[in-house]
Amino acid sequence: MTLDVVILAAGQGSRMRSKIPKVLHEIAGKSMLRHVVDVAEKIGADRSHIVIGHGADLVKESLAGQNIKWSLQAEQKGTGHAVAQALPVIPEDSRVLILYGDVPLISSQTLEALLETACADTLALLTVYLDKPAGYGRIIRDGNNNVIAIVEQKDATPEQLLVKEVNTGIMSVSAKKLNQWLPRLKSNNAQGEYYLTDIVAMAVADSVAIKVSHAAHPMEVQGANTRSQLQLLERYYQGHLAEELMAQGASLADATRIDIRGNLQTGEDVFIDVNCVFEGDVVLGDGVSIGPNCHIIDSNIAANCEIKSNSVIEGANLAASCAIGPFARLRPGTVLAEEVKIGNFVETKKANIGRASKVSHLSYIGDAEIGRDVNVGAGTITCNYDGVNKFKTEIADNTFVGSNTALVAPVKVGKGATIGAGSIITGNIADGELAVARAKQRNITGWKRPEKKPRD
Amino acid sequence: MTLDVVILAAGQGSRMRSKIPKVLHEIAGKSMLRHVVDVAEKIGADRSHIVIGHGADLVKESLAGQNIKWSLQAEQKGTGHAVAQALPVIPEDSRVLILYGDVPLISSQTLEALLETACADTLALLTVYLDKPAGYGRIIRDGNNNVIAIVEQKDATPEQLLVKEVNTGIMSVSAKKLNQWLPRLKSNNAQGEYYLTDIVAMAVADSVAIKVSHAAHPMEVQGANTRSQLQLLERYYQGHLAEELMAQGASLADATRIDIRGNLQTGEDVFIDVNCVFEGDVVLGDGVSIGPNCHIIDSNIAANCEIKSNSVIEGANLAASCAIGPFARLRPGTVLAEEVKIGNFVETKKANIGRASKVSHLSYIGDAEIGRDVNVGAGTITCNYDGVNKFKTEIADNTFVGSNTALVAPVKVGKGATIGAGSIITGNIADGELAVARAKQRNITGWKRPEKKPRD
Amino acid sequence: MTLDVVILAAGQGSRMRSKIPKVLHEIAGKSMLRHVVDVAEKIGADRSHIVIGHGADLVKESLAGQNIKWSLQAEQKGTGHAVAQALPVIPEDSRVLILYGDVPLISSQTLEALLETACADTLALLTVYLDKPAGYGRIIRDGNNNVIAIVEQKDATPEQLLVKEVNTGIMSVSAKKLNQWLPRLKSNNAQGEYYLTDIVAMAVADSVAIKVSHAAHPMEVQGANTRSQLQLLERYYQGHLAEELMAQGASLADATRIDIRGNLQTGEDVFIDVNCVFEGDVVLGDGVSIGPNCHIIDSNIAANCEIKSNSVIEGANLAASCAIGPFARLRPGTVLAEEVKIGNFVETKKANIGRASKVSHLSYIGDAEIGRDVNVGAGTITCNYDGVNKFKTEIADNTFVGSNTALVAPVKVGKGATIGAGSIITGNIADGELAVARAKQRNITGWKRPEKKPRD
Repeated sequence: MTLDVVILAAGQGSRMRSKIPKVLHEIAGKSMLRHVVDVAEKIGADRSHIVIGHGADLVKESLAGQNIKWSLQAEQKGTGHAVAQALPVIPEDSRVLILYGDVPLISSQTLEALLETACADTLALLTVYLDKPAGYGRIIRDGNNNVIAIVEQKDATPEQLLVKEVNTGIMSVSAKKLNQWLPRLKSNNAQGEYYLTDIVAMAVADSVAIKVSHAAHPMEVQGANTRSQLQLLERYYQGHLAEELMAQGASLADATRIDIRGNLQTGEDVFIDVNCVFEGDVVLGDGVSIGPNCHIIDSNIAANCEIKSNSVIEGANLAASCAIGPFARLRPGTVLAEEVKIGNFVETKKANIGRASKVSHLSYIGDAEIGRDVNVGAGTITCNYDGVNKFKTEIADNTFVGSNTALVAPVKVGKGATIGAGSIITGNIADGELAVARAKQRNITGWKRPEKKPRD
Repeated sequence: MTLDVVILAAGQGSRMRSKIPKVLHEIAGKSMLRHVVDVAEKIGADRSHIVIGHGADLVKESLAGQNIKWSLQAEQKGTGHAVAQALPVIPEDSRVLILYGDVPLISSQTLEALLETACADTLALLTVYLDKPAGYGRIIRDGNNNVIAIVEQKDATPEQLLVKEVNTGIMSVSAKKLNQWLPRLKSNNAQGEYYLTDIVAMAVADSVAIKVSHAAHPMEVQGANTRSQLQLLERYYQGHLAEELMAQGASLADATRIDIRGNLQTGEDVFIDVNCVFEGDVVLGDGVSIGPNCHIIDSNIAANCEIKSNSVIEGANLAASCAIGPFARLRPGTVLAEEVKIGNFVETKKANIGRASKVSHLSYIGDAEIGRDVNVGAGTITCNYDGVNKFKTEIADNTFVGSNTALVAPVKVGKGATIGAGSIITGNIADGELAVARAKQRNITGWKRPEKKPRD
Repeated sequence: MTLDVVILAAGQGSRMRSKIPKVLHEIAGKSMLRHVVDVAEKIGADRSHIVIGHGADLVKESLAGQNIKWSLQAEQKGTGHAVAQALPVIPEDSRVLILYGDVPLISSQTLEALLETACADTLALLTVYLDKPAGYGRIIRDGNNNVIAIVEQKDATPEQLLVKEVNTGIMSVSAKKLNQWLPRLKSNNAQGEYYLTDIVAMAVADSVAIKVSHAAHPMEVQGANTRSQLQLLERYYQGHLAEELMAQGASLADATRIDIRGNLQTGEDVFIDVNCVFEGDVVLGDGVSIGPNCHIIDSNIAANCEIKSNSVIEGANLAASCAIGPFARLRPGTVLAEEVKIGNFVETKKANIGRASKVSHLSYIGDAEIGRDVNVGAGTITCNYDGVNKFKTEIADNTFVGSNTALVAPVKVGKGATIGAGSIITGNIADGELAVARAKQRNITGWKRPEKKPRD
């Protein structure tokens, strides 16, 4: 039996007050819909169907390259109607699992447990216990604890209102049954919609067994209709990721003050200080320490590196034991060998820097190959751009670059060379040479300071 | 009937441990007292009276220019005594609303609801329900649900102690009644003070109807006597502002990690990352994105600008689609046309920068007029100050300023000019010219590196 | 009667997933074990004993220089066995208090209260009330409210399971009694361990009075076995420190967003904005204001200094009324006189700067003596390092250093001297002199811009 996952994603989400379709709003840097698509893949869906409507083109574009079957629900006539749009392309002998593009945090574990309860002839229903069930459809059971109905808030008796087990909308049933039941849905309700939930009553009427499974946490089945709800899901999800990190062996100064948008892998005895943000794929080796207020994107940081406070690192590759920051900005293409030191107010970009070299202050190192044991003085700038083309600066091992040096690329500096402070280097320097390019100092006596002028 | 608001603000607040009078301590960058003054204005008070005592001069100074009637309470002899100081200048036919300078978050909605319950001949009382009412005066009602007394904690019977409706101290009554009642207050209590609350008993005795209205949230009527309480009010208020922002169409990475001290207006689909602080009047256009750890003050940021992490922006005006930061610092007088890019470790001040121009790294641009499509290289500095006067740097369209350039103002650079890297520009450059001002490079062979000396 | 404190610290803590022994994991920048050692000292312990096992060498090293008596527990055979390792070196007439290296937040007040309940012949037991006591040993009392047993979860009757008073493991008893009781402990339990707790039953059997004292807060007696628990203790502790600061007279923008790792002393009317981290010994004088996202380490900041957002300060000494940042980085040996201004993207190190001098932008000032009323222009760099030695820059009072100046140390600049912008200063400048060291500008007409080349 194959598994077809149908994800409902046609709604507008007007309460978001947004030009963007609701399901494209993001949790942890990934659209809600993509979270659901990813969980479908994780549980081994044979096919994922997405039912689209509002903003259909934007939604399709957001998943370009993904293997998705798209169904258009031109008019929003309810969840039953939505599923019916996908049904024609689902094989009769497949099992269907219905998910929601705006319920992003449903876990693979919960769905696997739900699917395990199901067999060909049953309706598998995911429910959840809520302390405050007001507004949700209550799960009504008979004396044998079998589900016999879902009763909406407005139709519930006082006794039914006390029930804390509610419907999540997530369910699984064979395509065969859906083909029998969906055409029989009625829209004679206040909204004039076809509700998928009504198939539960049909299952009861047809004596189809209803198997129930429970969501581990209410936030797994919580939808986001407003940005406030979105934010609550974000924080729940981030809290969950923080707990995973700590279980892996990372210490967090504050589990409520870390944001992970992508995939953060940490070694043993990693320490992450407050207010750090990680995006994309980030790997932190054993013993790495990240200071407060850092922002790290798509980077590999090997063992025992120390990233000091207020640093921004993107697309960089750091070998072990580097010391970075505070106020360092490593941009894409930065590759640092072991024990490199990048200090405050330093920017690197497409820079390959050799073992134990130092760029400690106020420098821009772009399009550069720097050897090992090089000392780059404060205020050094690689002038890599002539307005249209970029050129390379090459600095060999053991070079000493004096402070306030400008290196006009293309330029090569030989091994063990020395550059005098304040030099504008426009030509190559051979191994061991000293290069100086600065004007002679003149001291003028009797000079009179300017006086205060009226402002022009 | 006119409305006179009397705000009690004479207390010292010794538990604040401060040189500043209690009511001048701030919530969201505005004194508590000012919050109350503003709400009085919002509900249409005809006159606002402030009763001052401790730190009276500082308090008056803090509201200089506001239309306030000041009353001095030379000795602090209780709330009834305080109101009595203002009463002589209130017209007999006016309605009086009593507020507290250390109860800053009372909302206009709650006060309007309170005033609506009131008519000329009633006492309108604001109460609140507390889960833990210990310490507060309980509202005692008769069998017809009419208020018959306020009983203080120490005087309450065990049954009365169970009452969760408590007195907030905020009330409204006609000046006429106050003129009758306040002189009859007695100070025969432990504190030897005249309590305003005692007029409730007089109203009951005089068969004056008591109309009750409830505060929507306990924090609205919570006073701040300590910095810890002040901080709780701050976070409640900030949470409230965050919810408003989200309802307007802004997404927040964390609603508990944003601080707004002033007026933040946001367009649609704005994203604000964690730990940002906004002060004064800030406008963010549609689609603006603010990275983590930014601090933005009195600035207009038009649609689709991207402010990257760890940037500080004050008094700046950005047209659409600018890209700023990380680590950018825009100071007052910065005006950026569309698509301008300001990169890391760049400071701008009184700088007018034209469309699509770029200042990407490690520069100081002050007192400058820069045209469009200008590229300013890394490490460029406008030398705008001679120690007493400031001078202007003018750079026309399409200019290329090489890295590590110093522009000694006043100086003008013509259209399409080019400045060689590392130049100190002291004279004007005509359209299309190349200017270079740097020393010739000398390479010296056989140079011997310095050796390690003993530290002096 | 003397007091011997025995601290159990032999456990591995495998749930930490760490190479570091459990007790060396840190709260507020100090190992858990060190917290316990410090509290022992605070309550006047005559001797502190630590029982070590896993990672014994690392644990000893972490407390090098402390006056500790070490006992090795080669095999971990339970808490009773652990205490027995220390007992031989404890005088028979001493009182013993047993603490735990992984229960770091026990307060001196709680321990003093516990010890007060004790006299020579009693067993003093510290208990705590938990809302959710599951898993903990329940305190069982008789009809006279005397403790008669501690019953473990698995052995408890349904009625006993309802008891919310639980054992903390912390207790105090005479060495004499321990010498009688510990040898009688049995290891006939599931873990095969000797449990210290079993001496409670012996005390009952021997009619030794058991005096009970309660921990003020459950977190005081909470152990950390995982990094998640460690983080909860960290946040509880930080919240506690934040409350202390506010009680002292500091206002916090957010009491949940401050981290203090060491000793922070604050004067009156100090304001600390969100997300600041303090390490080591930091003193903030009256009226100091710290902006958001600052990181301050081992520094003295005198009255009315303003530290603006995103600044990092370490080992610095600031006199009153300095203005620092944003984006300033003061390193060790920075000493600032009154009213000094250090602006954005400025780094100072071993720099002594006189009254009212300014270094406002993009500069590196290292190994420098700067007088008063000096203006250091943007982009100024002290070239203090020749690759092996560091040299000093001396700038006398009233000097004006033009922007983009490099000062090649050792160099002295006289009083009232002026340095032209863009100069490389290699020689001394006398009082009142103007020094210029820059190349002549050449403007070249008819120059043709480079064209776009194919990328190599």
